[in-house]
Amino acid sequence: MVAPSPTLHRAVTEHMVRQAVYQRLGKPLPTPATGPNALVVNVSARHCHLTQEAVEALFGKGHQLTVHKWLYQEGQFAAKETVTLIGPRSRVISNLRILGPCRTLNQVELSYTDGIALGFELPLRISGNIKGTLAGMLMGPSGFFEMNEGIIRALRHVHMGPEDASFYGVKAGDEMRLKIGGACGITLDRMLVRVDKSFKLEVHIDTDEGNACNLQSNTPCELLK
Amino acid sequence: MVAPSPTLHRAVTEHMVRQAVYQRLGKPLPTPATGPNALVVNVSARHCHLTQEAVEALFGKGHQLTVHKWLYQEGQFAAKETVTLIGPRSRVISNLRILGPCRTLNQVELSYTDGIALGFELPLRISGNIKGTLAGMLMGPSGFFEMNEGIIRALRHVHMGPEDASFYGVKAGDEMRLKIGGACGITLDRMLVRVDKSFKLEVHIDTDEGNACNLQSNTPCELLK
Repeated sequence: MVAPSPTLHRAVTEHMVRQAVYQRLGKPLPTPATGPNALVVNVSARHCHLTQEAVEALFGKGHQLTVHKWLYQEGQFAAKETVTLIGPRSRVISNLRILGPCRTLNQVELSYTDGIALGFELPLRISGNIKGTLAGMLMGPSGFFEMNEGIIRALRHVHMGPEDASFYGVKAGDEMRLKIGGACGITLDRMLVRVDKSFKLEVHIDTDEGNACNLQSNTPCELLK
Repeated sequence: MVAPSPTLHRAVTEHMVRQAVYQRLGKPLPTPATGPNALVVNVSARHCHLTQEAVEALFGKGHQLTVHKWLYQEGQFAAKETVTLIGPRSRVISNLRILGPCRTLNQVELSYTDGIALGFELPLRISGNIKGTLAGMLMGPSGFFEMNEGIIRALRHVHMGPEDASFYGVKAGDEMRLKIGGACGITLDRMLVRVDKSFKLEVHIDTDEGNACNLQSNTPCELLK
């Protein structure tokens, strides 16, 4: 197993520097910067979560996912393995990245742009709530795996720990807004709050949302109640 | 020449019905519905504007653009003709729609998703302000046309007449916000105001913005100062 990379996310470094500089100057921090943790906003490209059973059907008996890149949330990774998705109208998306580790359900998360390319309307769902969603077929180097449901556009959400929830005055299931700055800034108006003590403060937006506002690593972002 | 279609945009019909119903009931209109004109929001897919010279290079001497579909702004149309764009890294976008009538400059308007597919970063520009932007090659059935510049992502904007500008209390060059509702609503925070007495009240958003919020014909939209 590869150890998680020690590289800090740019937003985390900036948060630490900002706090140190203001403390040194003996000045109070500007309100959006007073949070206990840095706000990290990452764009999630299309991906899937699979069961160990699906991984074995696609890559061979006993196959274990291998780490391509560690993600910001502890223990989560983009796998080296990718699959081909064959949609309900037989159109195809290749190189669909698998995120590990394996889960107890099979779920494909696409953008609406992907849905249009595949020729069907994606249901908007909270990750994990896939009952009655779209079916499709996955193809790997060792075989096929049929999904009877599980193709969705995931509802946008923010991960946070209890300390962040308390700072922002929100609880799991609430909605917040994310204001993204820059020359073509947007505000995401309905973002579900997910709280768990293992979560680091992070917003995942999809490629449509990231491209609508041209999100770059230095684009200012602010979380609003 | 084909006559503009008499079909009213859904938002225009709703505006008329709403005003008639409230008047009948003797009740005041809710504030967002009091504007003199209905707010129409349309998604613009990638497209180009061409000079007559470029059209002739691509489609043959003396060729005139033909109307595929009339657009909401008076006299503007999507042409039957499409071209192939060959980007600076030799990647290709085919079936790029031409919007007519011909203009005095050549301009290709793409989304950031298109820019990523083509492998380059699009400059964000006000339509018409193309100096120093990206070059590319267009291919048509009768030949090629080289653009030395003109490939951009257009700055989002709202078209309006003087009566609308006065109602919203804005002038040409100001910025407004567009709040788009629904289950994955967003607010476009920096939208340039363009005023001309020939303009009908209309916001053009691109496919990334439309897909970020899953804009449908019945999605509620509100223009804010």
